[in-house]
Amino acid sequence: MSDSLHELAQQLRVDAVRMSGRAGSGHPTSSMSAAELLAVLISNHLKYDWADPDNPANDHLIFSKGHASPLLYAVYKAVGAVTDAELETYRQHNSLLEGHPTPRLPWVDVATGSLGQGLPIAVGVAYGAKRFEGAPSRVWVLCGDSEMAEGSMWEAFEAASFWGLDNLCAIVDVNRLGQSGATRLGWDLGTYGARLEAFGWHVITVDGHDPAAVDAAYTEAAGTTGKPSVILAKTKKGAGVPWVEDQDNAHGKAVERWEEAIEHLGGDRGIAVTPIKPEGAPARPLAGGVTGEVNLPTYELGKEIATRKAYGDALAALGHARQDVVAVDGEVSNSTFSEIFRFAHPERYIECYIAECQMIATAVGLQVRGWRPFASTFAAFLSRAYDFVRMAAVSRADICVVGSHAGSSIGEDGPSQMALEDLASFRAIYSSTVLYPSDASSAAALVAAMADLKGIAYMRTTRAATPVLYEASDSFPIGGSKVVRRSDNDQVALIGAGITLHEAVKAADALAADGINARVIDAYSVKPIDADTVRQAAADCGGRIVVSEDHWPQGGLGDAVLECFADHDGPLHVKALGVADMPTSGKPGELIAAAGIDASAIASAARALVGA
Amino acid sequence: MSDSLHELAQQLRVDAVRMSGRAGSGHPTSSMSAAELLAVLISNHLKYDWADPDNPANDHLIFSKGHASPLLYAVYKAVGAVTDAELETYRQHNSLLEGHPTPRLPWVDVATGSLGQGLPIAVGVAYGAKRFEGAPSRVWVLCGDSEMAEGSMWEAFEAASFWGLDNLCAIVDVNRLGQSGATRLGWDLGTYGARLEAFGWHVITVDGHDPAAVDAAYTEAAGTTGKPSVILAKTKKGAGVPWVEDQDNAHGKAVERWEEAIEHLGGDRGIAVTPIKPEGAPARPLAGGVTGEVNLPTYELGKEIATRKAYGDALAALGHARQDVVAVDGEVSNSTFSEIFRFAHPERYIECYIAECQMIATAVGLQVRGWRPFASTFAAFLSRAYDFVRMAAVSRADICVVGSHAGSSIGEDGPSQMALEDLASFRAIYSSTVLYPSDASSAAALVAAMADLKGIAYMRTTRAATPVLYEASDSFPIGGSKVVRRSDNDQVALIGAGITLHEAVKAADALAADGINARVIDAYSVKPIDADTVRQAAADCGGRIVVSEDHWPQGGLGDAVLECFADHDGPLHVKALGVADMPTSGKPGELIAAAGIDASAIASAARALVGA
Repeated sequence: MSDSLHELAQQLRVDAVRMSGRAGSGHPTSSMSAAELLAVLISNHLKYDWADPDNPANDHLIFSKGHASPLLYAVYKAVGAVTDAELETYRQHNSLLEGHPTPRLPWVDVATGSLGQGLPIAVGVAYGAKRFEGAPSRVWVLCGDSEMAEGSMWEAFEAASFWGLDNLCAIVDVNRLGQSGATRLGWDLGTYGARLEAFGWHVITVDGHDPAAVDAAYTEAAGTTGKPSVILAKTKKGAGVPWVEDQDNAHGKAVERWEEAIEHLGGDRGIAVTPIKPEGAPARPLAGGVTGEVNLPTYELGKEIATRKAYGDALAALGHARQDVVAVDGEVSNSTFSEIFRFAHPERYIECYIAECQMIATAVGLQVRGWRPFASTFAAFLSRAYDFVRMAAVSRADICVVGSHAGSSIGEDGPSQMALEDLASFRAIYSSTVLYPSDASSAAALVAAMADLKGIAYMRTTRAATPVLYEASDSFPIGGSKVVRRSDNDQVALIGAGITLHEAVKAADALAADGINARVIDAYSVKPIDADTVRQAAADCGGRIVVSEDHWPQGGLGDAVLECFADHDGPLHVKALGVADMPTSGKPGELIAAAGIDASAIASAARALVGA
Repeated sequence: MSDSLHELAQQLRVDAVRMSGRAGSGHPTSSMSAAELLAVLISNHLKYDWADPDNPANDHLIFSKGHASPLLYAVYKAVGAVTDAELETYRQHNSLLEGHPTPRLPWVDVATGSLGQGLPIAVGVAYGAKRFEGAPSRVWVLCGDSEMAEGSMWEAFEAASFWGLDNLCAIVDVNRLGQSGATRLGWDLGTYGARLEAFGWHVITVDGHDPAAVDAAYTEAAGTTGKPSVILAKTKKGAGVPWVEDQDNAHGKAVERWEEAIEHLGGDRGIAVTPIKPEGAPARPLAGGVTGEVNLPTYELGKEIATRKAYGDALAALGHARQDVVAVDGEVSNSTFSEIFRFAHPERYIECYIAECQMIATAVGLQVRGWRPFASTFAAFLSRAYDFVRMAAVSRADICVVGSHAGSSIGEDGPSQMALEDLASFRAIYSSTVLYPSDASSAAALVAAMADLKGIAYMRTTRAATPVLYEASDSFPIGGSKVVRRSDNDQVALIGAGITLHEAVKAADALAADGINARVIDAYSVKPIDADTVRQAAADCGGRIVVSEDHWPQGGLGDAVLECFADHDGPLHVKALGVADMPTSGKPGELIAAAGIDASAIASAARALVGA
């Protein structure tokens, strides 16, 4: 057996070397170190129906070290999923075989290439398969040793053992070398092992180039119950080709004299692996999608309800109607109000503790299994997981993210807890929708809408209770807005969202007292913005617009409004009010006044525009 | 001794309870668990001249659990730094005593409140003090047990032991309870200890409410050489007041019946601690600031040099002239070209490995000690540390951050490696400057300028070699731009930065061949943008502007340009070209063509605007 596995490993190396040699770039040496690890896995352990990647009984194969894509694609060839001709397109424009794997390939669950993400996401996949579905799927993750320095890996190690994910196996390719030199721990498998044991994993140490030993390690991992397993494999980067093997300066480029290297490796083998198919495809007991009508909460007009509370109410209601909706939270569910869902549907709530990267990764992993996750924490702390959100977009993931306690209006806790950049950062995410409701009714309706959106759906909620403005029967289409106040002779338009919409309403009252008619627009959909309504307001109001947002002046609602006027004739007088200086502690009213985004500031700006 | 320390601890509790009771919010219970830990520290171990917080021989006291600010401020009162009257202003508007500590207080090194940041930053402080300066300063960090779930803590634990920072002591207040329930590990000090030992720390376990034991633990920590120490203190949240002690639902709010609680604690003591002053103030051997003229590299016009290479060249040159300049990198110094500095000044280069949060935290910590850090990695991976950058701004930190390999033009590696959101995310950071030079000369000049900027200075560099456009004698003020091409009858203005500036130049050539005069503006300063030049271009060109950027369409250069026209009369026809769809792998030219941001797309857009 070992001989044929060795031959298969050599074939994987040959294909990796050729692919990157032809492309003139790529990571062949990072692939070569793990050739035996993958040869053994796909021959004897991975249960996967390559013709049916959506089979819920399939195992998962996730390359956390995404740069080893030549190895992954060589594996695809060995199991018959891609052809030699397709391998030749590696890294070329329009090829599905990208420099780092993306789900444009049907066998790729999530995009990797930002180190330290594949394992955390795999934890979410394993959670869904085991805890939600009872599926037989095992999750195999190839990790690099360099990425063991990423904190997110340790969030994943802690979470996986805490959740008892014995269907998860991390394979660490300890090839000792990073991009620009040796890793901190080199081949010190003992220290890696001690750390991982202390983190609650079953640790198996192995010579990663010995197929029989690797095979035994996988068997041991698969037989381990109650805890996840990690295989620490001592390997050599560039293994098999002396002039790159265990050498510095051989990272991230084609192997020098790659054709000679292929010869040295023994050339083509033409080995075809017979994949092991999974047994049976279990029904997913909970992931049944929409199973009933959503009975959203209703709120009395004028009553003061925080949008974060409406989020929790609506999510719980959604959970009754849709069995696929699940919630994750960063140990602040009593602040975000995801606890309402947690109490209503404890079996579909996952506490992720103070580990925002793992929280988003869990959500991304769950949607791989077909679940619809809502992830919530303070909006400020979503910035901790920004790279995970960015990569979720590359993964074409469909996730809902909700950030509470946005803006200076949170008050006394001070700026560390105030999201003032979230609208900008989420607007600059591919496939994103950015919502910022001002009242409970619109918040509830938008929560329901989010569950059907493709891509990254983000909602910003408000800490403070604000008056209910809308009826439950009102509709809030994505990309729409609400004109809260208008007349036939409006002189200025006031645009707000969330907390500032209420300030705009107050400002309109004050202006009315001065005889100034102000239109008020609730821009609850920040991306896409309701450009038609915004443009119409400019046309009707002589171009006079005041935008107010509880956010830094850059990248948020103000910029979204200005984007509506890129092509514009006639006067344009947009006064964009945002938080210009670093807030401090204080009462919410004091802080939005100090920031210059409250009713008084809006009214002053409007008066200045109309020349009053 | 223990009796008086117990009394001091009770005083700290009383002050914490009163402060938050009066404020009606805050985190008294999280303060009460650590009262003995702080009482002993400030009485017997912390060496700090409260009248001279800038004394480089001072120890550092960092509250990684920033929400325990009532305890910190109670400490300040005990050592005589603040008065009872000042404590009464806690959490009020304009008070320096904010809900979470910020450096508006002279004794606070960095803002905390986003969990998992204080310790990583303390690692940077300890590195500067010990490795760069040989200062006697010890760094004491109060950590929460909830934040042990943050991956960034484990980046810090690994880095600190690897760097042998025996001047660092982490004090973990294991009070078992988080915000919404118990932590994963509760009071399992054994597991915490095993993990930390495996991470190379000297572990001391102690009853956190026993002053004598705590005192012995500090003595042991201070006497430990070669590795950092961690004190795992078993404590009770809300200790001392039965109706909140070790109770759920007592997080983040005033103690119920707080006046009665003070009575129960024995009321005021009036204890004044006599602080221990540090011995001597050593010179900082390297932090001498500017010591000579900066001899920036010069580049031949027309030669092709990547701006990332110019970054490395300029930083090395800066390092010769300025002894305070240091570099940190996320193990990609051979890509960012910070390796040029690394080779020239190995003693001032810190390899942070693949741990971007710790990289930014190290930079923030070093600037606490007066160093001027430049932190570099792929711009895409700075998104991993976005929360650290956000908090660095709250800390009023002065750091320089440089992201390489920006945009789709990096080519074959694919979207996981392409920063397409960095301009937006860094523009939405308080105190930030955002620079995006297009050639080596301007890049070098701007690197030098960055070293004198306040706040967060960000530069985006380009992977590809691009032609040198400017003379070394040209000047590149922050907030300026370069008009690369202009005539007296320009019909359209083309605005680019970085890679797209070169496309704009090519587009202008193509347009000239069609008889269309195009102005070309190099917007190397994205924030602040050169609004005067942009507006003048609109005035001169009938409002016709094409902006092109290798970035998502939201929040970047396009929005910065549109902000210039918030108040505008007359026609405005801005065509903002950005990367609209998710890029794939491909050649750089193919990808910027596919993205619609190359010379051809710019020229087409310009022709459409002029009606040609």
